[in-house]
Amino acid sequence: MNICIIGASGYSGVELIKILAAHSAVNLKYVTSRSLAGQSVAEQVPQLSHALKDLKFIASDLNKLPALDADIFFLALPHGVASTYAEVLVKAGKKVIDLSADFRLNSAETYKEYYGQEHPNKELLANSVYVIPELTPKEKWHNQNLIACPGCYPTSIIVPLYPLLKEKVIPSNGIIANSYSGISGAGKKVEKTYMYCERDGSATAYGIPKHRHLSEIEEQLSDANGNELLIQFNPHLAPMKRGILTTITLPSLPNTSEKMLLSILNKYYDDKPFVNILAKGKFPDTNHVVGTNRIDISLNYDPRTKNIIINSAEDNLLKGASGQAVQIMNLLIGCKETEGLIA
Amino acid sequence: MNICIIGASGYSGVELIKILAAHSAVNLKYVTSRSLAGQSVAEQVPQLSHALKDLKFIASDLNKLPALDADIFFLALPHGVASTYAEVLVKAGKKVIDLSADFRLNSAETYKEYYGQEHPNKELLANSVYVIPELTPKEKWHNQNLIACPGCYPTSIIVPLYPLLKEKVIPSNGIIANSYSGISGAGKKVEKTYMYCERDGSATAYGIPKHRHLSEIEEQLSDANGNELLIQFNPHLAPMKRGILTTITLPSLPNTSEKMLLSILNKYYDDKPFVNILAKGKFPDTNHVVGTNRIDISLNYDPRTKNIIINSAEDNLLKGASGQAVQIMNLLIGCKETEGLIA
Amino acid sequence: MNICIIGASGYSGVELIKILAAHSAVNLKYVTSRSLAGQSVAEQVPQLSHALKDLKFIASDLNKLPALDADIFFLALPHGVASTYAEVLVKAGKKVIDLSADFRLNSAETYKEYYGQEHPNKELLANSVYVIPELTPKEKWHNQNLIACPGCYPTSIIVPLYPLLKEKVIPSNGIIANSYSGISGAGKKVEKTYMYCERDGSATAYGIPKHRHLSEIEEQLSDANGNELLIQFNPHLAPMKRGILTTITLPSLPNTSEKMLLSILNKYYDDKPFVNILAKGKFPDTNHVVGTNRIDISLNYDPRTKNIIINSAEDNLLKGASGQAVQIMNLLIGCKETEGLIA
Amino acid sequence: MNICIIGASGYSGVELIKILAAHSAVNLKYVTSRSLAGQSVAEQVPQLSHALKDLKFIASDLNKLPALDADIFFLALPHGVASTYAEVLVKAGKKVIDLSADFRLNSAETYKEYYGQEHPNKELLANSVYVIPELTPKEKWHNQNLIACPGCYPTSIIVPLYPLLKEKVIPSNGIIANSYSGISGAGKKVEKTYMYCERDGSATAYGIPKHRHLSEIEEQLSDANGNELLIQFNPHLAPMKRGILTTITLPSLPNTSEKMLLSILNKYYDDKPFVNILAKGKFPDTNHVVGTNRIDISLNYDPRTKNIIINSAEDNLLKGASGQAVQIMNLLIGCKETEGLIA
Repeated sequence: MNICIIGASGYSGVELIKILAAHSAVNLKYVTSRSLAGQSVAEQVPQLSHALKDLKFIASDLNKLPALDADIFFLALPHGVASTYAEVLVKAGKKVIDLSADFRLNSAETYKEYYGQEHPNKELLANSVYVIPELTPKEKWHNQNLIACPGCYPTSIIVPLYPLLKEKVIPSNGIIANSYSGISGAGKKVEKTYMYCERDGSATAYGIPKHRHLSEIEEQLSDANGNELLIQFNPHLAPMKRGILTTITLPSLPNTSEKMLLSILNKYYDDKPFVNILAKGKFPDTNHVVGTNRIDISLNYDPRTKNIIINSAEDNLLKGASGQAVQIMNLLIGCKETEGLIA
Repeated sequence: MNICIIGASGYSGVELIKILAAHSAVNLKYVTSRSLAGQSVAEQVPQLSHALKDLKFIASDLNKLPALDADIFFLALPHGVASTYAEVLVKAGKKVIDLSADFRLNSAETYKEYYGQEHPNKELLANSVYVIPELTPKEKWHNQNLIACPGCYPTSIIVPLYPLLKEKVIPSNGIIANSYSGISGAGKKVEKTYMYCERDGSATAYGIPKHRHLSEIEEQLSDANGNELLIQFNPHLAPMKRGILTTITLPSLPNTSEKMLLSILNKYYDDKPFVNILAKGKFPDTNHVVGTNRIDISLNYDPRTKNIIINSAEDNLLKGASGQAVQIMNLLIGCKETEGLIA
Repeated sequence: MNICIIGASGYSGVELIKILAAHSAVNLKYVTSRSLAGQSVAEQVPQLSHALKDLKFIASDLNKLPALDADIFFLALPHGVASTYAEVLVKAGKKVIDLSADFRLNSAETYKEYYGQEHPNKELLANSVYVIPELTPKEKWHNQNLIACPGCYPTSIIVPLYPLLKEKVIPSNGIIANSYSGISGAGKKVEKTYMYCERDGSATAYGIPKHRHLSEIEEQLSDANGNELLIQFNPHLAPMKRGILTTITLPSLPNTSEKMLLSILNKYYDDKPFVNILAKGKFPDTNHVVGTNRIDISLNYDPRTKNIIINSAEDNLLKGASGQAVQIMNLLIGCKETEGLIA
Repeated sequence: MNICIIGASGYSGVELIKILAAHSAVNLKYVTSRSLAGQSVAEQVPQLSHALKDLKFIASDLNKLPALDADIFFLALPHGVASTYAEVLVKAGKKVIDLSADFRLNSAETYKEYYGQEHPNKELLANSVYVIPELTPKEKWHNQNLIACPGCYPTSIIVPLYPLLKEKVIPSNGIIANSYSGISGAGKKVEKTYMYCERDGSATAYGIPKHRHLSEIEEQLSDANGNELLIQFNPHLAPMKRGILTTITLPSLPNTSEKMLLSILNKYYDDKPFVNILAKGKFPDTNHVVGTNRIDISLNYDPRTKNIIINSAEDNLLKGASGQAVQIMNLLIGCKETEGLIA
């Protein structure tokens, strides 16, 4: 099975190369880059194994891509750009795993509200599927040709909340999520905000009160619960390269308990290799998950306030992006779910 | 006016030395340390100006302290230890500015609940005063001999909330505060948790759901509002040396608006040099306040959720500790409030 | 082939677990720890895959170790402690790969000079072998039972210099090496020096002029050259978790050139997967090699000073410790040299 | 005495604002910026005291600058740009303290060699003076109108070496300087190299073998010694915001000793508040000097190699730039040398 990564020079693309070049069940055959076509991957991205020095970026030429000898295409492209590539590849009968936001929302209207423009391809949107590998039933997506991967912040919020909202053991109102992201979450943008001297030593908030990822979080969680939810989402930047730490606070419902909520999380995730519900007294830490495809989750009940506090930690570039995309591919092609990934 | 710092070798003590050694209205005459007595301050703490090489730590000898030729004593001691020193010094007629938690609470019962032991000196507690320099009316404390300085997390939460709760323009329930602290907040403890390799790259939660500082926050804010409040307080560690970023989320009351709430904050703080209410669209950043005694505050209303989101940033060792202690001293002795400090 | 790691809870031990648990040619069967015996590896070291939650630390019981069903023992123990374990295991006919300094030197006298005590087992020392996997001919060590792995600083200095000294195209005098190490180089020692607030923002020198690793560097390079060498070695700490950057300056010999020196390095290392001689104009960067077992090397001639400047970068915990130990094991058991490692 | 800072929005400019706004002997009256003219200093540079919110950037209008009511002009401009401003201001009889490289070299030929273009104003160059405040005799510069401040790397190398070369107690050949600089040394350039994710965790070399600052170092030290010197200078980037750590290695001369060399350094610097020769066994650390205008220096003799190893640490933005510029101003106007600065 041959693989092509389109837009392979960004942070997500590079992580995809790392994982797929070492993957035992597939063959990474092509990597494309508009700016680096013709150049050696290992020389342009010296973090990569120099064993890859003979792999070369090819141009991201829309006309030639369908003819490539590849079965699965990963799109690691900016939002808005991915859609054009997806259209051509899906038409050519290829499997497309898209890491951009272009097909994450079901509603084209919500897309317009949050992205400030018409959705670029509503027909394709209707034929795409959003896949949370632990939660979306395989029959809903294994025949689909266009798969949207969850965003980094959404993964850290949806994975712990989805089961609780689905089972209606927490209220659908009053959920507040504070997330702290490493700087790679912004991608490779060369902007003043992301310069070393601006970020070192800096904890700061941004995108309050209406970050784009909110649309995806609310759509998925509303779907889980059957009610329209509103989430308060406060994103922040923390002075570290990778990782997202999310702290969710919400009121508890009567007749529920910490134990009961934990047992539901365990029921959903006990057999899921990449979701780790922590023992009482332990808290997630980005340092524990960076480099893995795992999400660590803790849940505590506060008897004083009757609130629930949920913490989660993940690597934004792995479980929050490229790792999860490969996890989806593994399930799609039927190899071991953890192949190429660290749990 | 001569000054003595007791326990001058910890992080707060060192910041006090930095400020007071350069202060134009007082004379830093003594610094004590149990472990470093007899040694040169500048040699033991090479971050300090080597102009201080002739200043020597003296022993923290309880019997000899009252006889020192000093008017004001700063206590930069661990909780539980400060009380013993305060007793002796107050009895000797000295002014004592205490940076520990020993006299921050009004209620000895709350102290016992949060600190796990009887308050070491209830009589003295009754004769001490907790001073938020921008908020506590000067007539309540300028004749007092034992002043308790606010804690670092509490300052970042109380300063923005106090006016709003006092004016009853926000509800007394449903307040959730997430704080992200630099590692110096833990003091100079040599423990595995605070090792470089544990903390670099790490964002993590701790002390949930009942951190000690909660007692002080709730006591002060209940006092402001006239109602017993419960706050959800989620502390975290961020990979940086200094600074606290706090994000507070709370429901709004009908008939209030972002503009009205901001106008109240501005009314309370317009003439306060160390409180800076940011213009719309700006968010506090620890990098902007580290090295200053300032607290930066933003307030936003979310029309979707009808919640208020308040952000604040301060230097945990300055506005959250030693800077604020000197600010209190400045007001006490009647010199310029900003003397020796950066606004 | 079954593997046992002794002293598996330190930084090197944890890296060995990471690599060997995922290694396709061997079976990680035992991990020992004096302090954590009986506890789950994944719970005690949450950075590790939680797939390892059923692997438990066993006691480091000298009497029981020889009876374990393991073929190869890695010693990730402090200097001085390793020797005792090595003795027992070698006597029992086990293969021992030692990451400590106990068997790195040929001369027991040099050991005494640098480590301040008699060598704990001179007989065993005489029967051990120091292996630089790219340089030590396999016939010299493939039948040996006790293999000493190179130190982190020495690897970064010996790999680039050895070929040049052996071919006598650089002088044996006047070599100056400045190394900058990440903090994990100090191990898990809980000491004031390695606290986050001490190291963040800090570049500093230490151990000048006679760091212990000098003994190993000089012994190996003298051996390569056939003359007794003296090296000036200046170690430093840099504010980062992992990685060593070394800059070596030395005079050039007449009738040599940058091109000739590079061609010698390329001749020695062209077929070595973990040594990467960079193209002209590129410099090694710790960020490029952390997480890999690779060492990146550049060499430049300065026509003004007629000096040679060599730079190298490696991951101190991988190529400088555990990765190189596994590389040696791979060669020893005859599997692919890169198995389990990133080039 | 009124002050104007031209180019006040870069890192050096901001440090100048911080120092001069709080300086008791001068009045910071004007700050100029091409890009921020008309805007509030405190709003555009939120690290600055918000007490400066009424200070506004004015345009850097060459025609209007001479008419400003200011006595001293600091130029914090890019190399090549400063010269134009200096010309106009000197002609108008103003005192100019230039932080750029435009007037640091005596030789216009060396300028051309290192900066790749003709010197923009050779006549002015001949009438400017390079001032190391501890070393350049005041009679040589107190009547000059155009003063060039030393560069950051040169300060860290010239201050320790100058006295030893002048007294001819070290050789003029074989000096090797390795410097490790914080990222702010590159200024506010928004380039990929200086992005957070590129630099966090990275130690790397650059500019080898012929960095521009070499010209200034060699010119000054040759002048001190009376012989043409060649220095090997290896600059590096370290993952920290501020600070330079320099390690210099050189052969010793017969009939010299560590003690003798230290006594010469002490003779030159004992009465200099900003130069701190460390006691035996102590090493400079960037964390000790960041925020101060001090340079810490250690010197060790290695009896094995007969080499001298000198270490120095300074804040690149203070002693290496703006702090030293103010120190020069203090000496120029005859106020206390340490006014506004921390020793």
